[in-house]
Amino acid sequence: MKQEVLYLSQADVEAVGLSMADIINAVEKGFVEMGNGRVEMPPKPGIHPGEGDDNFIHAMPAYIPALNSAGVKWVSGYPPNQKKGLPYIMGLLIFNDPETGMAKAVMDCVWITAMRTGAASAVSAKYLARPESSTIGVLACGVQGHTNLEAMSVLFPLKKVMAFDTSAEQAQNLADFAQNKLDIETEIVSDPRKAVTGCDIVVTAGPILKTPHETIQAGWVDEGTFVSCVDFDSFFSRDALNEAAKWTTDNVAQYTHYKDGMGYFQGCPNVYAELGELVTGKKKGRETAEEKNFAANLGLAMEDMAVAPLIFQKAVEKKIGTWLPL
Amino acid sequence: MKQEVLYLSQADVEAVGLSMADIINAVEKGFVEMGNGRVEMPPKPGIHPGEGDDNFIHAMPAYIPALNSAGVKWVSGYPPNQKKGLPYIMGLLIFNDPETGMAKAVMDCVWITAMRTGAASAVSAKYLARPESSTIGVLACGVQGHTNLEAMSVLFPLKKVMAFDTSAEQAQNLADFAQNKLDIETEIVSDPRKAVTGCDIVVTAGPILKTPHETIQAGWVDEGTFVSCVDFDSFFSRDALNEAAKWTTDNVAQYTHYKDGMGYFQGCPNVYAELGELVTGKKKGRETAEEKNFAANLGLAMEDMAVAPLIFQKAVEKKIGTWLPL
Repeated sequence: MKQEVLYLSQADVEAVGLSMADIINAVEKGFVEMGNGRVEMPPKPGIHPGEGDDNFIHAMPAYIPALNSAGVKWVSGYPPNQKKGLPYIMGLLIFNDPETGMAKAVMDCVWITAMRTGAASAVSAKYLARPESSTIGVLACGVQGHTNLEAMSVLFPLKKVMAFDTSAEQAQNLADFAQNKLDIETEIVSDPRKAVTGCDIVVTAGPILKTPHETIQAGWVDEGTFVSCVDFDSFFSRDALNEAAKWTTDNVAQYTHYKDGMGYFQGCPNVYAELGELVTGKKKGRETAEEKNFAANLGLAMEDMAVAPLIFQKAVEKKIGTWLPL
Repeated sequence: MKQEVLYLSQADVEAVGLSMADIINAVEKGFVEMGNGRVEMPPKPGIHPGEGDDNFIHAMPAYIPALNSAGVKWVSGYPPNQKKGLPYIMGLLIFNDPETGMAKAVMDCVWITAMRTGAASAVSAKYLARPESSTIGVLACGVQGHTNLEAMSVLFPLKKVMAFDTSAEQAQNLADFAQNKLDIETEIVSDPRKAVTGCDIVVTAGPILKTPHETIQAGWVDEGTFVSCVDFDSFFSRDALNEAAKWTTDNVAQYTHYKDGMGYFQGCPNVYAELGELVTGKKKGRETAEEKNFAANLGLAMEDMAVAPLIFQKAVEKKIGTWLPL
């Protein structure tokens, strides 16, 4: 057996050209497996090097037998990096052959992380939003604002984006992306309420804070809206959150760890369902046109490992990357 | 800042030419840091893919500030591989810059794992064996038999190896290695007792078993001997183990997990000390010439991360490996 490993840089991973539709499909398959108890995903331990209290490097292992996928994402988040001109999030993913344990690929994980996070929001929306949703509010227009918008545009007939960001440049970036890549009109708004009220889907994608800024107040979210809280509960007043008909997450075990072990999600509603329960029909998704439904997905190793085999396969087909001896 | 990562294959890592003496020194420095509470090393989670109950891939993260080292080892152990002509142990180590989280190197971890495990035995022996130890018994003469012998030969004036293995070929391999590389005479023995009684140092390095085969009986280990149980307690009858004056390990938390959580080490003596406590003088090592002292080291991420910076530095100096864009 050839003992070689394929290295894919961030540029290589992007050049593979995996579509958001394919990523959503893969992530949903992963949630089906998880909902059926067929994913092995141990807790993610981390180290906290360097200066700055919030630096982390997390190991995120997962094994999905049905997708023939096993591996680990080793991903860092360093808030002080931005001052140094370096990305906040960096890292590598090792993709293994489940049959032998041998590494098949080492790939940059930044693009995958951004895309699969948007894809998970879209899978939640598939079960919790109204299918005809056409107006989306995006609050905080960074990387996650972009990938969440793109993912929602795959599953919903989006006509209009309401973009809010404290940085005019960020908001304009999202508007350009929506117009040029997705062919969706954007209105940049300076009042955050205008990116919430009147929207069928709302995505909040700012920094994750232990003490939420609670910008969004009770009464802002319309009946029938779906909200993806990519930044946990940071954007919402407790009263606004408690309007939720269904408050969901991607993994209850991890949610409980963040809530009870780390102090996030204080005062949030009880979790109605895990995403795996929604996609397998074990719990019902949206049941009425009026429900205000929420997803607070945390990001799972399973999602990365659902996408990694597709990246690997397409890279091999397109002869992208660098083969190295093990 | 240059965003590149250095890839080192197994051949590259070996070509770096790090000496066992340097590795022992690095591992001991790591244990000093650990003994002083200055190492971050979370539990190692694993996945268990493929067929075969005993397959594992473990994520082993560690951060050692004093050595400017952070990273993870992602290492697999697949018993069925041997029938396929593949190694039992395979894996990669990602070495990060603690200041930014950026990956500095991805390197094969097989050589490092073998060498640092021998080195940890030798660090234990430095504190628990008699300095004049000259005869060593090696029971099971595979990779760990070799590296443990080499490591002991760095710290002790070894004159004679007593080699026991159920495979004559394995025993002869060790004899050849001892003669040609270490210039130490070897006697291959078919009676395991001859590799125990009369030896100043004993290393057992067979397969790790939940149900020990208990080959070594009470009365076989001489007074004054040091035993490194690389294969946990697999080789020893309970009566033989309970002759121990000092029963030690490299990490009590992990030992407790193996014992109480997984069922290893049943009926073993109470742990006298962690290796970090011995190297920092918090607990005394050998106190009399008569003590029978034991180390049952489990293998720690910290040990890998103590060695990784040296590999990286020497590889850069010697221009070994392949630089890749991140």
